[in-house]
Amino acid sequence: MVQIEGKQFIGFDEHAGGTETFRSTHAATGEQLNYIFHKATQAEVELACEKAGDAFQVYRKKSGVEKAVFLETIAKEIETLGDQLIDICCQETALPKGRIEGERSRTINQLLMFASLLREGSWLDARIELADPLRTPLPKPDIRYMHVGLGPVVVFGASNFPLAFSVAGGDTASALAAGCPVIFKAHSAHPATAELVARAIREAARKTKMPDGVFSLLHGEGSIVGMQLVKHKLIKAVGLTGSFTAGKALFDAAVKRDQPIPVYAEMGSTNPVFVLPQAMKKNYEAIAKGFAASVTLGIGQFCTNPGMMMYQRDGVSDNFIASVKTEFENTLGGAMLTDTIFKSYTQGISRHKAEMDVLALGKEVEMNNSAHPVLFKTTADVLERHPQLAEEIFGPTSTLIEMKSKDEMLSAARNLSGHLTATVQGTEEDLVAHQDLLDILSQKVGRIVINGFPTGVEVCSAMVHGGPFPATTDGRSTSVGTAAIFRFTRAVCLQNMPQALLPPELRDENPLGIWRLVNGTRTKETIH
Amino acid sequence: MVQIEGKQFIGFDEHAGGTETFRSTHAATGEQLNYIFHKATQAEVELACEKAGDAFQVYRKKSGVEKAVFLETIAKEIETLGDQLIDICCQETALPKGRIEGERSRTINQLLMFASLLREGSWLDARIELADPLRTPLPKPDIRYMHVGLGPVVVFGASNFPLAFSVAGGDTASALAAGCPVIFKAHSAHPATAELVARAIREAARKTKMPDGVFSLLHGEGSIVGMQLVKHKLIKAVGLTGSFTAGKALFDAAVKRDQPIPVYAEMGSTNPVFVLPQAMKKNYEAIAKGFAASVTLGIGQFCTNPGMMMYQRDGVSDNFIASVKTEFENTLGGAMLTDTIFKSYTQGISRHKAEMDVLALGKEVEMNNSAHPVLFKTTADVLERHPQLAEEIFGPTSTLIEMKSKDEMLSAARNLSGHLTATVQGTEEDLVAHQDLLDILSQKVGRIVINGFPTGVEVCSAMVHGGPFPATTDGRSTSVGTAAIFRFTRAVCLQNMPQALLPPELRDENPLGIWRLVNGTRTKETIH
Repeated sequence: MVQIEGKQFIGFDEHAGGTETFRSTHAATGEQLNYIFHKATQAEVELACEKAGDAFQVYRKKSGVEKAVFLETIAKEIETLGDQLIDICCQETALPKGRIEGERSRTINQLLMFASLLREGSWLDARIELADPLRTPLPKPDIRYMHVGLGPVVVFGASNFPLAFSVAGGDTASALAAGCPVIFKAHSAHPATAELVARAIREAARKTKMPDGVFSLLHGEGSIVGMQLVKHKLIKAVGLTGSFTAGKALFDAAVKRDQPIPVYAEMGSTNPVFVLPQAMKKNYEAIAKGFAASVTLGIGQFCTNPGMMMYQRDGVSDNFIASVKTEFENTLGGAMLTDTIFKSYTQGISRHKAEMDVLALGKEVEMNNSAHPVLFKTTADVLERHPQLAEEIFGPTSTLIEMKSKDEMLSAARNLSGHLTATVQGTEEDLVAHQDLLDILSQKVGRIVINGFPTGVEVCSAMVHGGPFPATTDGRSTSVGTAAIFRFTRAVCLQNMPQALLPPELRDENPLGIWRLVNGTRTKETIH
Repeated sequence: MVQIEGKQFIGFDEHAGGTETFRSTHAATGEQLNYIFHKATQAEVELACEKAGDAFQVYRKKSGVEKAVFLETIAKEIETLGDQLIDICCQETALPKGRIEGERSRTINQLLMFASLLREGSWLDARIELADPLRTPLPKPDIRYMHVGLGPVVVFGASNFPLAFSVAGGDTASALAAGCPVIFKAHSAHPATAELVARAIREAARKTKMPDGVFSLLHGEGSIVGMQLVKHKLIKAVGLTGSFTAGKALFDAAVKRDQPIPVYAEMGSTNPVFVLPQAMKKNYEAIAKGFAASVTLGIGQFCTNPGMMMYQRDGVSDNFIASVKTEFENTLGGAMLTDTIFKSYTQGISRHKAEMDVLALGKEVEMNNSAHPVLFKTTADVLERHPQLAEEIFGPTSTLIEMKSKDEMLSAARNLSGHLTATVQGTEEDLVAHQDLLDILSQKVGRIVINGFPTGVEVCSAMVHGGPFPATTDGRSTSVGTAAIFRFTRAVCLQNMPQALLPPELRDENPLGIWRLVNGTRTKETIH
């Protein structure tokens, strides 16, 4: 068993210069846990940034294989944490053991996915244009292009994924893969979990001889430490999964810096689900069941939770509504992640109750901050009059929205703001008849799901977990999948650089055997 | 000969609703030209945005080949404009005929380069992860990913490239290639040139049956029309090559919108040149000659103009300085592009004279707004005390900065802000001995040039014409080369979409024969 220190991990050293402390909570009971955490001081923030800046000068030159070994070693060290990680994480989040074990697997797989990407090398997007000294009117120079890391990155932990979107989560893995040191601001709801994972990263950095400062973990409550980090001149990009308020505040601060920097904040999404007529007729029971489960999975605390379901009124609607009601009444509430989330949920539900009917309630569960699942029902015209009803309430709630016609459904789709996902339940015949709907939705989201539910984000090369503002602050980006590495890179080109001074990725002999674009042709060949 | 109308080209229609007009100037004489241009009204801005929004719904579904034919037809129509385009452009800019003819070729080649990229299809970055229904603990869904256009784009014309960075220039070509309609705000210094090129685009859009609104041209002086465009909710991205003041103002407006949008502003760069000791010894005469020519090429009005040259004091420095002086004294001044640019140049030269010695003056030329080339000389410590001396003065001027040692040179390199380019003149031995310098520079710029000069930007797949702030507002991007298409795209993924409803790019049979990443393997194969 590892002792929880409650200190800042700044590179390989621990610091606890501040006098202010806080404790995390046993989320299911509301009791304070015994670990005491020091909040980072301004001097500690400064030190972490300086160490990250220095580390970048070394880390950016590590080869793909060296970085891959580092990520693989982090994965191993997380496994080595064993049950202590699972137990503490369950205490701090009230999430069940099975879920946390699954999330640990996902976290490890994400690290291994980026390690594999580094070994394979295509993310460099290496491009070579060979010189043509005889070209007229001007000779063509030799130009070679590849992606490099931006510099030190600040990542913020998400409350709802204490492992997979936290200390060694997606943003950390993609930033480290890109060659960027990471300063991680731990979420104050799971600081002990954060410290354990930080230990794993630190141990991996030591074992693989990475520079001091390639990773730091800082603690704090509220926004002070986070803002100090985002405003620091050595920081070159920011990753966050959190609320609209938090994400937008960081974005606003980042664009006002002397040197503006990119902020990748995933902020919130209502993930609308559309049920088309034939699918409703054939499958309404299965859709009702899947929907109720997706809304209440993990006490509804997913970015991809389906917060709206739209359908057209017709002969089977009443059966469908009755099924959804029955399924929803069988769902269970439970302890939410934090006091703040529970309060927001309760307030959101009150606001919705003022404008919409409650169709069904899930079962109450006696726990601390226990959310009661609520399903609302309304009509398209109410939604149009009260567009704020389309805003996310984080938790186990959703709204059935009845449409009079296909046109009303298309109009509701057109009025959507940016979301992470949109889901369509439809037979092939339905889908063909609703290509206009699919076309509208593809402009509103990062991912369209057909005949599934949006919860469950596959970690793979083809995933887009992102979407137009206000789902994220940068709709050109994804936080899940291999393309997430481009959050933290830019391209640089070298003109007429002698072979001996080129990085191996761009040398004629292609020593790494990577795919490259040579004079417009994609090849793994050596250049003769 | 085409009649210049001086109206807004809004889609296929012309509008001149406003009463305010302006005229452009014969730049070499200062006389007003006979064409009268109406400034766009707010209603015309609104109409152009609405048409662009509507056009996007059609244009985004055009195939790569259809868009390629559109771009190729634009290129042909520009050729068809013939000498009238060259003559009017020379009048409005005072740039010589040979230069404008060369720029026309470049503009046409850029359009053809993007057409070729569209036919080839790799920019889509198509990624397919096939379903695995038997995977445990959860089945793997089918997920398919590709890039799509962001939506209507506003592009601003650059004063200094009236063709290649103007109406049918790089940003327009890459936005149209990405599937985005373009609203072009003409530069008020070359509105007649802009109108002619807009006619070519309009004609090409008609001939290739592109939707009304795929392209519009608006006129205005100052920032009113531009700001109205950037703040319009239908606009999804902005491209500009211009001053820091203009670019930063657009960036600030864009990030304050209800929905922030990306701004790609290329703003300014001093493009430092470093001369290493062995190269100076062996090549000082050639370096002096090339440098003087690069500083004064096109009256110094290039984004990549070398505004600083740094070298270490040693035995040959005096010979080198004498050579640079002689070469510079043989350079010619001439008419600048606009009154404003000439005024800024004159003011910049006065500010520099207060802090630095004049080493050499070029030859004066009797013309309107005629810039006199000025070469300054100073030392590293002066630059360190007055960092504003490193800011760009747009025009035929540069500064020799003498360093006492390699350490002083490294320190000056570390203090650089973001630039488009850095150039190093060195023998292979020099370069090996200065890998630390190259390493610093690669973090400061988009392109490193070895033994050349930064003016002259090769249009190809491997070019990066961009760089960290303040060279641009988005250092992750390039405005030249095929990678510029990613300014105007984002990825979308489709989960479990039936084959019949997938876009051809992502269908199993790969009807377009493009490179795709299938389950992590790059291939052009059909999926069975």
